[in-house]
Amino acid sequence: MTDSTTPTGTIYLLPVALSDSGDLRCVLPDINFTIVRGIRFFVVENLRSARRFLKKCDRSIDIDTLTFFTLNEHTNPAEIPEMLAPALAGNDIGVISEAGCPAVADPGADLVAAAQSRGIRVMPLVGPSSILMGLMGSGFNGQSFAFAGYLPVDSAARTATLKEMERRINRERQTQIFIETPYRNNRLVEELCRTLPDSMLLCIASDITGENQNITTLPISKWKKRKYDYSHKPTIFLLYR
Amino acid sequence: MTDSTTPTGTIYLLPVALSDSGDLRCVLPDINFTIVRGIRFFVVENLRSARRFLKKCDRSIDIDTLTFFTLNEHTNPAEIPEMLAPALAGNDIGVISEAGCPAVADPGADLVAAAQSRGIRVMPLVGPSSILMGLMGSGFNGQSFAFAGYLPVDSAARTATLKEMERRINRERQTQIFIETPYRNNRLVEELCRTLPDSMLLCIASDITGENQNITTLPISKWKKRKYDYSHKPTIFLLYR
Repeated sequence: MTDSTTPTGTIYLLPVALSDSGDLRCVLPDINFTIVRGIRFFVVENLRSARRFLKKCDRSIDIDTLTFFTLNEHTNPAEIPEMLAPALAGNDIGVISEAGCPAVADPGADLVAAAQSRGIRVMPLVGPSSILMGLMGSGFNGQSFAFAGYLPVDSAARTATLKEMERRINRERQTQIFIETPYRNNRLVEELCRTLPDSMLLCIASDITGENQNITTLPISKWKKRKYDYSHKPTIFLLYR
Repeated sequence: MTDSTTPTGTIYLLPVALSDSGDLRCVLPDINFTIVRGIRFFVVENLRSARRFLKKCDRSIDIDTLTFFTLNEHTNPAEIPEMLAPALAGNDIGVISEAGCPAVADPGADLVAAAQSRGIRVMPLVGPSSILMGLMGSGFNGQSFAFAGYLPVDSAARTATLKEMERRINRERQTQIFIETPYRNNRLVEELCRTLPDSMLLCIASDITGENQNITTLPISKWKKRKYDYSHKPTIFLLYR
């Protein structure tokens, strides 16, 4: 909790584009640009892409007058509290991840947790999410779904995870959503075709919001016969029956 | 699959606002309004709120020249294929639900599934989602999370569901997300305080994007002592440790 005599700033969670192609204004509401222009302190996953995003929001932003903290998988968690110091002093902070919505599948969540535990106001803004947009486009159950991040790399753990997903689809009617390192996407599809029942539905949603967006739902039996190439493309995978 | 000589239309999934207060332009990108203006056929969860949304998008839209199909929990699933007829004839179709993103927690998913099985292109647009924005603002694990819709009403099933959620938080580090009928929100918070361990973190995200937005994460021990009133307010609940 903060001292009630010091009004704290707000932590704005600023989504960015999923795809390099295309106009930011196709994926972000106008208000996001207005808010970005008013922020002087940023916590960013990647400094270079965050600067590029800010320049795309408004060419007139003077990047050199802004303060940036980097928060990624290499950051020592002990450094997080000091990133909140500007907010405790009354300044707003913008959080920017490499793609999509901050704090959903990146280290921004630790910063938000630290802000919440100090009573600092957190404000998520609207933007593109491959998880949500993949789910919308899949036709799968949106009343119950789970996102699992990356499948385990270890082969036995991977098989066990896929078995458990199959069980949750059948017992709980829970849509299963996951991702893969992009250069392994094709191998993952082959593996799903080899290990899942023919009738299981697989949705592959690729380059969402990009020029080559493709969201295709087919049973495994049809994926087996289909030509595809998702290698190195940002892609999300969904399973249901 | 469609006859390759007939180019089919696209099914646009058009998010709407979560809250009645506030400007649509704060929650939807500009491109959404441009796309809406070009669509003549709509599948909507609620006719009245869909008309109001279209008028808010653009006062000059002549609603009476548009064709609407209603798709909600009372719709016979056998009627869904005919709703896709305009798309098979080359027209775009807009899908609009009562709040937030279509096909995520409403019957639009069945329409999308029917479109996918016919090879009709599906295009989700960006918009506000209380699930995603609640997750962003909670500070909880966004690498692994599950949305369960409503908790069961039956008391034994409800307790079992909460126990299973607790297990998935502890074993899988999976954030648990759910909703309640708004008039029962306060009773749900009391129940969570009574049945969950003191150290469990509960995030209550209320009126997201609205004037009274409040996203608060606290351990159960602190919620027990806190004053709150979420009755009749659109609210989403998240659990983690």
